[in-house]
Amino acid sequence: MAELTRRLGRLRPAPENFLSEADLKAAREGRRRFLRTSLLAAGAAAGAPLGAQAGEADPAIVNLPPWTTSPGSPVAARPYGSPSRHRSALQRRELPGLSPVGANSASYCPLQGLFGIITPSGLHYERHHHGWHDIDPSRHRLMINASRPGLIAEPRIYTVEDLMRLPPVSRIHFIECSGNTGTERAHATMPTVQYTHGLLSCSEFTGVPLRLLLEECGVDFRRARFALAEGADGASLTRTIPMALIESGEVLVAYGQNGESLRPENGFPLRLVVPGVQGVSWVKWLRRIEVGDAPYATREESLHYIDLMPDGQHRQYTSIQECKSVITTPSGGQTLLSRGFHNISGLAWSGRGRVTGVDVSVDGGRNWRSARLEAPVLAKALTRFNFDWVWDGQAAVLQSRAIDETGYVQPTPAELRAVRGTGSIYHNHAIQSWQVRPSGEVVNVQVV
Amino acid sequence: MAELTRRLGRLRPAPENFLSEADLKAAREGRRRFLRTSLLAAGAAAGAPLGAQAGEADPAIVNLPPWTTSPGSPVAARPYGSPSRHRSALQRRELPGLSPVGANSASYCPLQGLFGIITPSGLHYERHHHGWHDIDPSRHRLMINASRPGLIAEPRIYTVEDLMRLPPVSRIHFIECSGNTGTERAHATMPTVQYTHGLLSCSEFTGVPLRLLLEECGVDFRRARFALAEGADGASLTRTIPMALIESGEVLVAYGQNGESLRPENGFPLRLVVPGVQGVSWVKWLRRIEVGDAPYATREESLHYIDLMPDGQHRQYTSIQECKSVITTPSGGQTLLSRGFHNISGLAWSGRGRVTGVDVSVDGGRNWRSARLEAPVLAKALTRFNFDWVWDGQAAVLQSRAIDETGYVQPTPAELRAVRGTGSIYHNHAIQSWQVRPSGEVVNVQVV
Repeated sequence: MAELTRRLGRLRPAPENFLSEADLKAAREGRRRFLRTSLLAAGAAAGAPLGAQAGEADPAIVNLPPWTTSPGSPVAARPYGSPSRHRSALQRRELPGLSPVGANSASYCPLQGLFGIITPSGLHYERHHHGWHDIDPSRHRLMINASRPGLIAEPRIYTVEDLMRLPPVSRIHFIECSGNTGTERAHATMPTVQYTHGLLSCSEFTGVPLRLLLEECGVDFRRARFALAEGADGASLTRTIPMALIESGEVLVAYGQNGESLRPENGFPLRLVVPGVQGVSWVKWLRRIEVGDAPYATREESLHYIDLMPDGQHRQYTSIQECKSVITTPSGGQTLLSRGFHNISGLAWSGRGRVTGVDVSVDGGRNWRSARLEAPVLAKALTRFNFDWVWDGQAAVLQSRAIDETGYVQPTPAELRAVRGTGSIYHNHAIQSWQVRPSGEVVNVQVV
Repeated sequence: MAELTRRLGRLRPAPENFLSEADLKAAREGRRRFLRTSLLAAGAAAGAPLGAQAGEADPAIVNLPPWTTSPGSPVAARPYGSPSRHRSALQRRELPGLSPVGANSASYCPLQGLFGIITPSGLHYERHHHGWHDIDPSRHRLMINASRPGLIAEPRIYTVEDLMRLPPVSRIHFIECSGNTGTERAHATMPTVQYTHGLLSCSEFTGVPLRLLLEECGVDFRRARFALAEGADGASLTRTIPMALIESGEVLVAYGQNGESLRPENGFPLRLVVPGVQGVSWVKWLRRIEVGDAPYATREESLHYIDLMPDGQHRQYTSIQECKSVITTPSGGQTLLSRGFHNISGLAWSGRGRVTGVDVSVDGGRNWRSARLEAPVLAKALTRFNFDWVWDGQAAVLQSRAIDETGYVQPTPAELRAVRGTGSIYHNHAIQSWQVRPSGEVVNVQVV
């Protein structure tokens, strides 16, 4: 610690890329002014001890701002609060040109400005196939039925309230669109981590294990080997879920997210939670589960969400999101304003279980050192890592590499490409590289 | 599981008390209608298997709603999302009459409608002494100084950006106002859990250990045994923090909450996080830490936040929030509409560490059984528990009793009163009782 604090004297801030160009300019200029002021103030404080009462503070040191000299807003002024207006630039954003139809598109989570592992629900990424509605929960139903007689003893229909009265579980899990990082499969493309990796979020979900509902309906688990999940959106999105996942108890019919009801954009009032599996299978606005004895090969399993391999064959049902990580700061679009200490922070996750380690390289993968993992480290949840770095002002390439409890190591782009080629859009979990230029600018590069 | 699912057939919903009287009436009436409809529908489904395509659904079973037959809103329609309009009754609320001045009052978190352990930041409880402001972070500073020369080598002033560049940690912790449940110290008073226990929330906080900052300033830890934390609000709220807590590394200067910046009502841009300790010490809008060699006995430590004992003496600095729990559903103001299975759910926490168990009684404390604890169970964080219960329609008294890793067992009101009397407003952590009447109404009672 003592050595670290000595180095911290040389710390200079790097504005996040949710700041505007004007903010960036102000930060560059304001920094020099502040350093002069604060050094003077610190000197003055050392020579002139202050009393315990704030009112006695020396005006030469603290020029009291309006929030200290005037009464503030009352409690419950906002019965449901929102972020500071000073953080309004932190938004989920559509990628211009991604889709001609906003109702069939995606918005990206601003990972570069987030902390810890919980994604604020207001910034959760979106992927809609036919837009989102704020469904009236009193009119919504979940039906459980079967593709043919004999697979289920008693089909049932549940109201949302029925489900909320059943024994619930709460679990923290990541959700990642399998298209996340799909733009980067052949070469570096997107300027910021919001667009390279922002189809990723993590929440505490609350709901009922789907297994419990199927047991209640008397499903014959020896014969019903698959289930079809169907959404109430205009796309009536459908995905096949292997019964083995459901029988494990991990698959939830969720109504809660981060302590409250799901948000409309994330499937209110009900969505499927399929831990470790690509986001498209977490069917939103869930209205039906049909049990069957074969995969359904629906539109979203045949035309999309498939992996085109180098031999021209498609792989279907490759739904587990493999071990992956990314540095979120410093990252593309940010600028290091000076040499000295910079904390490298990022996220790691695996659809196979817990992350057991994250290595960080600052020289493009030649040397690696272990990052610190923040607790709690949970299975199929985001894990936050941090890493001390002193920038010497030279060009550097920052990378992170995650390892999960199965021993699987996140591959380089070259390793992934050797198996997959570059024709596949989905499931790109290769190592991401950010180049720090001598100017301090951070840009997306690909180191194969 | 099989036994449970058989009992689930008799489940009937209990509307949360964030529903209006009109909602409640609608739920009572709609219930009977829905049961007829769903039984018919379930029968029809069993006899008429459906295809995998939503468009083929039999209109006799599913009367397609507008959200299935029309395109929805585009992605990023709300760059920062908010809850469903159907959940707008779930609000933090001031207790009418609690204070003549809303800027010096409290708003209560609606625990009866929340899930899991993470409190949505928009519903986090509030306790302000002079109102809240949305502080401009570029104008905010944190000063670290000392009460007299020699305790610190180099006083310093930090900008918010300086702090955000230091090595951070992220941790999930509860925060509880020591006045929480203060209304219930002599007899049952408040109608709902929002008002009996709603000065309680739990978040993932991100920030810098205060120890690191004090090390950087060269604090002499052998002589500086206390620190004073001071807020930038009009009350300039001040609290003494024992240096032993700071040296443990647990005390954070936090800027992040649930993945994003602190909310203005919760101290944006900086607040102190003092895990396990009463909320008043988690100084909001933190602007100064002064190290000293004695407690400061400030206004908020001498006139308020003290425990009046039966012998007329005051206890000061009793700041640890002891092991406590509460059932959040069913709870006061809710109504059980029918006999049968009801999930009992609640929260447990301890300022001393991890919760190791929660017992639930449905007969006013004569018999106890263990509840299920939801993972993760974290030190000085809320722990969610659930408990299966089949209501036979008779009067019942529901209680929960938490045990923590020190072996401490949450006391009954009589046990607490034997030590404390009833003169003390603060630190009431006694067992809470909810009576279920044969009518299904749930009311606050005190079983000593």
